[in-house]
Order: sequence, then C-alpha cells, then structure tokens
Amino acid sequence: MAKRKNSDLHGNAPDNSSIALLLIDVINDLEFEGGEILLPHALPAAKRIALLKERCRSAGIPVIYVNDNFGKWQSDFKKLITHCLKDQTRGQKIVELLKPGKHDYFVLKPKHSGFFSTTLNLLLEHLGAKTLILAGWTGDICILFTAGDAYMRDYQLIIPGDCVVSQDEKENQRVLKFMERVLDADTSSSDQIELPETHHLMKKFATRR
Amino acid sequence: MAKRKNSDLHGNAPDNSSIALLLIDVINDLEFEGGEILLPHALPAAKRIALLKERCRSAGIPVIYVNDNFGKWQSDFKKLITHCLKDQTRGQKIVELLKPGKHDYFVLKPKHSGFFSTTLNLLLEHLGAKTLILAGWTGDICILFTAGDAYMRDYQLIIPGDCVVSQDEKENQRVLKFMERVLDADTSSSDQIELPETHHLMKKFATRR
Amino acid sequence: MAKRKNSDLHGNAPDNSSIALLLIDVINDLEFEGGEILLPHALPAAKRIALLKERCRSAGIPVIYVNDNFGKWQSDFKKLITHCLKDQTRGQKIVELLKPGKHDYFVLKPKHSGFFSTTLNLLLEHLGAKTLILAGWTGDICILFTAGDAYMRDYQLIIPGDCVVSQDEKENQRVLKFMERVLDADTSSSDQIELPETHHLMKKFATRR
Amino acid sequence: MAKRKNSDLHGNAPDNSSIALLLIDVINDLEFEGGEILLPHALPAAKRIALLKERCRSAGIPVIYVNDNFGKWQSDFKKLITHCLKDQTRGQKIVELLKPGKHDYFVLKPKHSGFFSTTLNLLLEHLGAKTLILAGWTGDICILFTAGDAYMRDYQLIIPGDCVVSQDEKENQRVLKFMERVLDADTSSSDQIELPETHHLMKKFATRR
Repeated sequence: MAKRKNSDLHGNAPDNSSIALLLIDVINDLEFEGGEILLPHALPAAKRIALLKERCRSAGIPVIYVNDNFGKWQSDFKKLITHCLKDQTRGQKIVELLKPGKHDYFVLKPKHSGFFSTTLNLLLEHLGAKTLILAGWTGDICILFTAGDAYMRDYQLIIPGDCVVSQDEKENQRVLKFMERVLDADTSSSDQIELPETHHLMKKFATRR
Repeated sequence: MAKRKNSDLHGNAPDNSSIALLLIDVINDLEFEGGEILLPHALPAAKRIALLKERCRSAGIPVIYVNDNFGKWQSDFKKLITHCLKDQTRGQKIVELLKPGKHDYFVLKPKHSGFFSTTLNLLLEHLGAKTLILAGWTGDICILFTAGDAYMRDYQLIIPGDCVVSQDEKENQRVLKFMERVLDADTSSSDQIELPETHHLMKKFATRR
Repeated sequence: MAKRKNSDLHGNAPDNSSIALLLIDVINDLEFEGGEILLPHALPAAKRIALLKERCRSAGIPVIYVNDNFGKWQSDFKKLITHCLKDQTRGQKIVELLKPGKHDYFVLKPKHSGFFSTTLNLLLEHLGAKTLILAGWTGDICILFTAGDAYMRDYQLIIPGDCVVSQDEKENQRVLKFMERVLDADTSSSDQIELPETHHLMKKFATRR
Repeated sequence: MAKRKNSDLHGNAPDNSSIALLLIDVINDLEFEGGEILLPHALPAAKRIALLKERCRSAGIPVIYVNDNFGKWQSDFKKLITHCLKDQTRGQKIVELLKPGKHDYFVLKPKHSGFFSTTLNLLLEHLGAKTLILAGWTGDICILFTAGDAYMRDYQLIIPGDCVVSQDEKENQRVLKFMERVLDADTSSSDQIELPETHHLMKKFATRR
C-alpha cells in the first residue's frame, strides 16, 4: 500500500516476549483415516496443553496457532473452528478445550513445517521470541518438521513430551528423544517448565534488529 | 498434522489456471495520512478493477487478494472488510466494489511485496499460474515490490496501467514505464487485455512441477 | 547487473534432467570429535557413492555437491578439497574417491538442510529435477533435514540406504525407516536403483514453469 | 554433517559489525551488449568504490561481494576474476581496482536481488549488520532489487550516489531519488559517509537473536 513506518508490520503484533507458545495443528476435525487412533492420545494432551496455554497467557507469553489450512476465502480459520465445534466431529472436545482467545495469533501453514511459506518467522522476530514452546500433533511429522526449521533458525526449543502426540506412541517417544539429542530440545513434561515472571518478559518494545 | 497425500496443500486450492489476477491492497480503509489524496485516483480505478475481476471470473481465472494485514486472531480479513464497510471509512465505496466473493483466495502480506514471508508463491505454483495480472495500489510501492519479486520468479506480468494508482500520478506513470522496461510488463489498459477462452485455461489438474 | 534474458540464471546451468544426484557433506576433513567413529562407516559408503556417481554421469544425471561451508573468500570449495587431500586429514581417502569433476555443480550450505538459505531449489527448478537421489552423511542430521525440505517441495526421494551413514548405525537404520514411512523415500540399496536411459532424460531445454 | 555447535554457521564468519559494505556485480567482464555504454560510468565509480572499500576495511567493516554467477564447479568466483583480468575484457581495469582481498566475503546471486535464493541474509544476521552500504551496478536493476529486499528486512540503507551507475544516467538519478523517498536510503556521495570508529563497531561477539 502507501508508505508507512517500516518498523511496523502491516497489521499489528503488539506483544513483545522472548518466549512464544506454538500450538501445532490442534484445531482439527480429526475426520481422516487414523484420526480415531490419534483421538485417545490427543484429548488428554489437549487438557495439558490448555493448562500450559493458561499459564503462558498469565505470564504474558504470546500464543500462536500454527495450523493446517490454506488461504481460501471460504475456508478461513474461524470457519474451521466452527466446523470442528458444530458438525459433530471427532475433534470437537479438543477444539472446545483449545479454542483461540481474542489475543492469540494464528498462522496458517500450507505444508508440514510451520516455517515453510508462512509469516511465522517474521512474526517471531517482531515478537522478539528466542525460545519456542511447541505443543500439538503429530510429533513425528509436523512437530518434527517445525522443530527442525526452528533449530536451523537458532531458536531454543521446549517441546513438553506430554503435550505432543503421534499415532504410534513408540514413534512419538523416539522422535522426542531425537529432538532432545539432535535439536537440543527440552522435552520434560509441561509441569516442569518454569515460565519467567511476567515483568521479566515485558521488556520495552525496542526497535528490532 | 498426520500424514496425508503430499500433493495436496493442507487445505484446498482446487483451481487450475495459467493466469491469476492479484488484487494488491485494495481492501483498505484509506484512513491514513495521504489516503485522501489516493482516494480520487483509487475509486475510478476500483471500478475498472471490478470489471476486470468480473471478466476474470467468467474466464475461470482465479482472483487472489494480496493484502496488508497480519495474523492476529482479532484482525482477520473478514473483520477488516466489515470495518471498511461499516465504520464510514474513506475506503468504503472501493471495498463495496471489490468485496471478495466466495471463490476468491486471499493472502495476507506482512510487508510490501506479496511474495515476502507469505504463501503466495506456493499457491501460484499449485494453481499452475505462469502469468500474473496485477492491479491495486500503490504503484510505486507494493505493486512495484510484488512485480519485482514475481519477475525474479519468472512470471509473465500484465499490469494494466488504468488499474494501478499511486499518490503522485507522475510517479505512477514513471513506475509503470519502469516495469515495462525492466520487468517486461505489459502495461496496456485493462480493456486491452485479451483473456483466453475458459476452456483453454481449464487443462486437467496435472501433477505439478 | 544490466538487464539480460530473464530465463537464464545469472551464470550457467546447461543441464536438463528430471533426476539429480545430491552428495551431502561428502567433502569433509572429518577432523572433528566423532569423525573417527564416522570414518569406518563413511569410507565404504564413499566407494558405493563413487560407483553411483559414475552411473549417474553416464546417464546424464547432474551431480550436485551440497556441502557445509560458508561464503568466505578464503574458504572456498576448491580450497576445502585441497585441504582435505593435502593436509593428511581423516577425510583424505573419501575426498579422493568423491572429488568433484568439471561438470559437477556445488552448493554451499550454511546450515543442516541443503535448502535453507541456498540456491539449491532454484538450481533444481532450472535443471527440471523432480526426483532427487540423496547420498552422504550424516543420515540423522543433514540428510534428514535436506530430505524433509525436499519432501515439502514435492520432490520424489531416492535415498539409497548403503550410501547414507551416521555415527550410530542403529540411528541410521531408524532414520532410513522414518524417511521411508514419512517422506515416501525409496531406501533400497544403490545397486537397486534403475536409472533411466540417457535419451529419456535429455528432453530439450524447454522454457521452465 | 555431524552435529556441532549450532551457533556456528557451517564455515566461518568471524567478523562482527553493525555495518556491512555490499559490492553488487562489480566483478564483471562487461562483455555484453551495452557493456560499452556502462564502462565509462562504471570505471570512475570503481575508483570511488575502491576508496570507500579501503575506508571500510580500515574501520573493520566487512566487505561482501554480491555477484552474478551460479554454482557450477567450473565457473567459480576466482575463475571469473581471472577471466576478467587475463582475457582482455572490458571489465579488466575495474576488476583490478576492486579485486577481492583475502578477508572479503562473497555471495553468488542467481538473480537480480542479492537476497533471492542466497545466504546473504543469514550471513548479515551472523555479522550483526543492521546498516548496509550498497555500491555497484546497475542502479536501476540489481541495486534497486537488492535495496528493496534489504528494506523489507529492516536494514538501514546507505547508497552513495557516486558509487552506483546505470546504463542511462537519467534513470540512475531517478532510481536514486526513488530509493531515497521510498526506501529511506541515504544517497549522499561516498565522501559524505561518516564511518564509525573501529572500536565502536567491535562489540564483543554476542550470541545472536
């Protein structure tokens, strides 16, 4: 559009925090082959993610939904949520637990990694995030791809093992160990994460770079 | 999420067309300094863009809104449209003319170029687009940046001179000539664009790449 | 620089092939902690890779060295090769086996994935490559990262299990199975790869996209 | 390759500086149509660029050659330099003036912008650069494209007007004004640039991001 202060994104990203919580693909109707296998793992994880999200919000840590979907007018994120909630889908209870709040961000991802062909990295840079907490599913695909891309971009990773699920539980454990070994990820369970005091996070919104 | 056929985007992009129409930043309240200068240029251009869009839709050419904004939950694209329409903004009449239809795509861009940190290129590849028609504002900033990025990615460019406006009309003419000379853009007026017959565009949805 | 035919890359990439062989990090002095563990796995693999490379060259399949390093004037790729060969390094024999020929391409990668912040994807698009053969090390890091990025970009993957090594052989087997399951990679041994006849590959150099 | 400290690039970028000098396409044989028109502009500019480069080196500011070319084994950068110097090319005198020194970096670019499909941005982030000085040619193509991409990535721009040339001098002046107006570039002549004292630049090499 017309010129403006370049330090702004063309929109708003008012938060500033060295930590961000990324919820990967938690908004999903689970109406695909294998969804019925994922559900019994995903639902209890969703409860833990909801608690973690609540703690993050209290600590002033921004929450970013990084979710499958694509930029069609008719398939926007709100519509997806409504579909999950109203159309008696497998994902209904999870979406009830993890419904985005009005302060949450979202980034639609067209492929497996949240960083591929999306604004995610730019958003994180503007937030000032250096540490990412990843939660969601599935561990061995979209979490792994997103974590690998985050690692190459020098983010510190916290991937609480009890907030990540895959269709095969053994594979899930394997990939958690892999991310611990190769990506230096902290995979302790979510109640072990020590979140900083709010005021530590809330540094003044400095000009970035 | 879980695995799926990789040839799909994670969402839907059913169209297939060698041409795409990109509407750059046309959804805008124009409530910024200089917006009052842009309005008298932009409104008549919006009428011509609306006609061009109608012709494109008839020819089966997908329309993609590439628009400023950022991924905050509370500032989604529909909300922006509602704001432009209901809050008595300068942009109201334009947005009435150019309101997205249910088949249109949209891509929110965080910076000047529609290709920077967005899914635009991936969407265009999946559509099979090789020629882009650019319309919107402003010519000397977001249109120029987007056109330059499109050129580096080997797209053919049609940038109808009567569908692009800038705050300064002289600069607008200059940048149109520049894009003609350097980016090989066709800048003839919109009524000179020959759109292919629908059935020529509608090749079968081949595997891409 | 000055304007030129845009269909060219600024340099030359005359080959055209639907398949490309990527050699990942094979040029290395192995003079790091753990290099002595990798060497006994890597040396026999290097012999098989050398054979595979020879078959690829005969079939007109371009070979691309995708190798760690960074763009310092004084640390260019030729210098790295000379260092490996002349300075009595652990990697000497491997580099002798896999020394680049005058028709080979190379892409220096700054991080784990060959696609991250490099020209690799653009080069592959210009070559017309749709299928990638990956060989080199280590399987559980740079091969995995590169394969994941290739998969998201819709390349077909052939990752011959006997041409990929990691420090831990069990991890190597695990990651090969993972790439088979999640990335649809063919991980059969290199002598099982059927390369197309030369003349099938040598389609005329069509304008791309 | 094998795992290593992730904070390193896979290679070396030891410098640390908030400013970097980018020399765009100065290594060129000028043996293309129009090269004879560019030469009389480029040669005197090369003398000024050589002085500027010398001042930068004295101030500890890293110099990065961002140059056309592509990653073929046989067409590496050193070979290009030798060709320009030995084969009686139009560019010979310029390349003599601007021959890279052993501390200089180089980034080969496949297209017009130095940022497109290259490691440039990652290198600049590792150097800690926030301000870029751009010099070279041509002003209305590769300098403009690179400057636009730099601006979107929030770099401050210094583009000394006497160190940038285009085939058409009027166009060159126009594009300089454009970059001043739209990209907030400082286009004063090179002798007006105030370089910081060395010790101001040499902050300790902090962990980045």
